[in-house]
Amino acid sequence: MKLIRYGQIGQEKPGVQLKDGTRIDVSGFGLDYDDQFFGNNEIENLSKWVEENKEKCKIISPDTRLGSPVYKPSKLICIGLNYAEHAKESGAQIPTEPVIFFKATSAIVGPNDNLVIPKNSKKTDWEVELAIVIGKKAKYVSKDEAMDHVAGYTLHNDYSERAFQLERSGQWVKGKSCDTFAPLGPFIATKDEIPNPQDLDLWLKLNGEIMQKSNTCDMVFGVEEIVSFLSQFMSLMPGDIISTGTPSGVGMGLNPPRYLKPGDIVELGVDGLGCSKQIATSFD
Amino acid sequence: MKLIRYGQIGQEKPGVQLKDGTRIDVSGFGLDYDDQFFGNNEIENLSKWVEENKEKCKIISPDTRLGSPVYKPSKLICIGLNYAEHAKESGAQIPTEPVIFFKATSAIVGPNDNLVIPKNSKKTDWEVELAIVIGKKAKYVSKDEAMDHVAGYTLHNDYSERAFQLERSGQWVKGKSCDTFAPLGPFIATKDEIPNPQDLDLWLKLNGEIMQKSNTCDMVFGVEEIVSFLSQFMSLMPGDIISTGTPSGVGMGLNPPRYLKPGDIVELGVDGLGCSKQIATSFD
Repeated sequence: MKLIRYGQIGQEKPGVQLKDGTRIDVSGFGLDYDDQFFGNNEIENLSKWVEENKEKCKIISPDTRLGSPVYKPSKLICIGLNYAEHAKESGAQIPTEPVIFFKATSAIVGPNDNLVIPKNSKKTDWEVELAIVIGKKAKYVSKDEAMDHVAGYTLHNDYSERAFQLERSGQWVKGKSCDTFAPLGPFIATKDEIPNPQDLDLWLKLNGEIMQKSNTCDMVFGVEEIVSFLSQFMSLMPGDIISTGTPSGVGMGLNPPRYLKPGDIVELGVDGLGCSKQIATSFD
Repeated sequence: MKLIRYGQIGQEKPGVQLKDGTRIDVSGFGLDYDDQFFGNNEIENLSKWVEENKEKCKIISPDTRLGSPVYKPSKLICIGLNYAEHAKESGAQIPTEPVIFFKATSAIVGPNDNLVIPKNSKKTDWEVELAIVIGKKAKYVSKDEAMDHVAGYTLHNDYSERAFQLERSGQWVKGKSCDTFAPLGPFIATKDEIPNPQDLDLWLKLNGEIMQKSNTCDMVFGVEEIVSFLSQFMSLMPGDIISTGTPSGVGMGLNPPRYLKPGDIVELGVDGLGCSKQIATSFD
């Protein structure tokens, strides 16, 4: 099943994208896609409800804005340097265990909302990523148990301001948390739709030119290992998002480096998770 | 006004601690202390409601458990190395701008709940801190405007696993986010109760012995500067918590270093914000 949320910012409603691409409103099911929905395993109930009620559901017009497919996740966790070639282009070693950082959840926007280049930014950069959506609370789970705690997957562009991230005092979060820096979606694909998350092509284009192109088989640490590892250091809560790192081809890694300017068009996709598109705009 | 939340874990209700120390239930007001409460400036309305209704409110027994005084904040942001003597004991330079890191909100617990030392931890450490509670959304606010965005203050023990934080790949968040690592409260003091947040004594005792003792006048960056600075990098949302850093006297800074073991009793306080007490327990 493909879960979407649609409508104006702050007023999104839940929907489902059917196999033929039609998007239907499922407000009648009575739940938004939040911690309760994922934690109580309502995906199964929703699936049955859709089978029984889809003919009666309102069809969503294709030009309707999509929002983030998760409502207010408690955490947006990212894995750093998780593709060997990207670690290399960043001038970093391949990590011996997952590198963890957070983004502010206030950075989350819809998949096709504009990217707003922050004030005083000179180095806003792109990062296509496969993101995991947590289903069941995970605390000290093994690799073998990890998939029981995954609800599904979504597409994420982990926008990063490299000067804020790397040239200011301290930790990366400073360059990862600006508003609009985390477009999620178009949809959550429930995990039954993605039988092997370690064999998905992912790509990103800037103004039509391919910048990133890789496959999730190149991850240093895979989905099961990431979920298990993170759960040794914190409880993963239903609805939490874990972004699994980006392959090579970011602007910082080019020679000379290349960063986003107003008017730039960024398009990206992951196999089975659809595509998103952001237009870069200036704050002022 | 002093805002409390009380009751069993996950079932807390809102309350108010009156001037004479009596704690009353204010469920009748109809709102929990969440983003809506702070964002809609309901503090003023609650204050009037309490004046009119306090005689009718249920009195909370003094031995009732207190929960975190904020319901599900979207972010728990911390400022690192914000007291010169603590930077020194950590072997770090005094920062030239605020160092930002995040803790997982899943680490938040009530002020007197047990600290659970995580599995495989050898270096669990304490950090008494003054925490700010955001009232109104803050984005690109100046120092002069900053206080308009503050709802109040609370006491925070920023527990830290130093090996996870500093000896594992990457970012500090790994050693800051374990469950129970963020006891908040006993209460939020609304900002009218704390006319000068830069002149508050703060202290922490381990098994009755003073370990940390300082004053918020020793902060490298004060409350106004922190709020303004953070708002240049992310939107601060109503209910968000910002912990302003710890003074010297943490376990890591002692010679030899000293870390928590099951049975240890940690007590801490900040002027005007009350005291909290955690007993260290082992996970198993």
